Amino acid sequence: MTAAATRGTLAGGEHTRGVYNFSAGPAVLPEAVIRRVQQDIWDMDGSGIGIMEHSHRGPVIDAMWTRTEAACRKLAGIPDDYAVIYLQGGASTQFSMVPANLLPEGATADYINTGVWSQKAIKEAKLYGSVHEAASSEGSNFDHIPTEIRCSPKPAYLHFTSNNTIFGTEFSAEPACPAGSFLVCDASSDIFSRPIDVKKYGMIYAGAQKNLGPSGVTLVIMRKDLVERCERKLPTMGMYKTHAENDSRYNTPPVFGVYVMGVVFEWILENGGLEGMARRNSEKARAIYDALDAGFYKPHAKADSRSLMNITFNCPSDDLNKAFLKEAQARGFDGLKGHRSVGGIRASVYNAFPVEGCHALAEFMRDFARRNG
Amino acid sequence: MTAAATRGTLAGGEHTRGVYNFSAGPAVLPEAVIRRVQQDIWDMDGSGIGIMEHSHRGPVIDAMWTRTEAACRKLAGIPDDYAVIYLQGGASTQFSMVPANLLPEGATADYINTGVWSQKAIKEAKLYGSVHEAASSEGSNFDHIPTEIRCSPKPAYLHFTSNNTIFGTEFSAEPACPAGSFLVCDASSDIFSRPIDVKKYGMIYAGAQKNLGPSGVTLVIMRKDLVERCERKLPTMGMYKTHAENDSRYNTPPVFGVYVMGVVFEWILENGGLEGMARRNSEKARAIYDALDAGFYKPHAKADSRSLMNITFNCPSDDLNKAFLKEAQARGFDGLKGHRSVGGIRASVYNAFPVEGCHALAEFMRDFARRNG
Repeated sequence: MTAAATRGTLAGGEHTRGVYNFSAGPAVLPEAVIRRVQQDIWDMDGSGIGIMEHSHRGPVIDAMWTRTEAACRKLAGIPDDYAVIYLQGGASTQFSMVPANLLPEGATADYINTGVWSQKAIKEAKLYGSVHEAASSEGSNFDHIPTEIRCSPKPAYLHFTSNNTIFGTEFSAEPACPAGSFLVCDASSDIFSRPIDVKKYGMIYAGAQKNLGPSGVTLVIMRKDLVERCERKLPTMGMYKTHAENDSRYNTPPVFGVYVMGVVFEWILENGGLEGMARRNSEKARAIYDALDAGFYKPHAKADSRSLMNITFNCPSDDLNKAFLKEAQARGFDGLKGHRSVGGIRASVYNAFPVEGCHALAEFMRDFARRNG
Repeated sequence: MTAAATRGTLAGGEHTRGVYNFSAGPAVLPEAVIRRVQQDIWDMDGSGIGIMEHSHRGPVIDAMWTRTEAACRKLAGIPDDYAVIYLQGGASTQFSMVPANLLPEGATADYINTGVWSQKAIKEAKLYGSVHEAASSEGSNFDHIPTEIRCSPKPAYLHFTSNNTIFGTEFSAEPACPAGSFLVCDASSDIFSRPIDVKKYGMIYAGAQKNLGPSGVTLVIMRKDLVERCERKLPTMGMYKTHAENDSRYNTPPVFGVYVMGVVFEWILENGGLEGMARRNSEKARAIYDALDAGFYKPHAKADSRSLMNITFNCPSDDLNKAFLKEAQARGFDGLKGHRSVGGIRASVYNAFPVEGCHALAEFMRDFARRNG
């Protein structure tokens, strides 16, 4: 029996810790994952050495590395001609690393501007070449996903942010990509929350701290021919090639973060895979949106652009927002304060957020509306 | 009583897990630290939310952030005109970030070449300006720390690697720095292993995974005027200024890594501070070097350049090296295989490595020599 087989099940979404954690990220992790991590930081796979203390080139980490990539490929159906790479620095580092590697001198990259994170990505890209804004919802404070995309004649790539944490909007499907170009997606806040057709993308990147694990590790899924495409003379650590060719172990990688991500991948697989996540996330979001749509509250995102991950709304007044947050906190709903760009309330309900927490919030929302409407 | 005050003691260096972990990094952590982490990943400071799951801008992380920096400043006596910054990407990222920020166009930086890590740092610096090799021990396979340093007329800075993990050499004191310049030190493998006079440095950087915590977080201690000095137009994430001005939270930082580092800082403080570490490390290394000097073994590093962190040696033949490693492994000494550049055996005995493990290895070394000499 392999070490993995003796490790016990991760199935289930139990919630025993009193508090519902609606944090936008870093965010709640499955309790089964945390229990596993508690064991493995003391003794990984019976080695007598914890997961944080093993050489990144030793056999225990080799086995974990193989297991993690296999689980990732299995759950998302990642084809063999795509590399799976683990990096550091989050999406913020990808904002510059993408154009440094993939936007050749003199070329133009197209960006869809759906919020703060898109804007940050655009700002960094301008250090390396021309940026064409193919669509934007800035005019209405990013309350929707634009449907009309006008690309430049020959963009190097088309970049979009699949889910907008701050504004609570989400692409329901990928934007159409011009022939000869490829899609680059910042999927930090909705990766693996639903099935994904990786072949539609040139590259997907995601900071782990919302749907995948702790902050400090970035998952990159990238077509292998793109890994090689960089024309600039960049620092060694700034080239995708360096990491892809060295199995993400050119330097000492963020071993612990990769490991936790791997346990989360296993948790997803044992809990219905991406289809199971999608079903669960849809039920969770519906519970809250139903309470929103009963009146009283003002949702920020337009109905056709609603995120299943981050639900943003205001009460009829700022005083009521404050009262809502205070009462919610007292009832064990943590992290509901909205981002200053939208104000009010934001409920972030990523994969690991328990179903019953969404029903509990919806019930509280109805009760609060009744008492204050 | 504050949360910190209820957290219990970290004093002591108990070793209960059957295996002595001599890994060069990631490396052994104090058991008391791991026990603390096991609790805090489930529930941090009584919040009902684990350390990996808290918003990096929330009150629980605020408190941890303050505690961590205070402990760091206290243990190393870091003056107020130095910034403490947490970054990602390890020393390998600093190899390019240092010259990108601190080596102006047309200027020269001086580097002391004491091994693989110095060479990597030199390679990246050449992307940004001229490099002058002020000293090198390459001619004798990096078996010593050069004493004669010949700097260029006006170097932007003088860079050195305080401890050389692969070759087992260590600076016993800082090299003299030319007037008008400043020292930059890659202290990844001996930081906080002994008292340090921070004022002698312009900047100190260290990947955490040897003396400070898990891989995935880099500690930077930097004179505040240098933070501002960057003249190049760099990506936002590539400027020290971005991180220093935002309390290392411009983007989502590697919260877990910073947290563990903070617990290790507390562990150091509760176990004699840097003076206590130095005494302990000196006793540990002496036990092993005494066994080395009894004959039979061939040490790699010259006596005056010996590292207290990494002890490198060979048996009289390659077959004996293999036999040594095999027997050692069977006795629960893990991670002793030397780096291919030196071969043979390497015992890495950072701060958290227990004293009795060094005495146990020394005893085994004497026994093995007796049986095979």
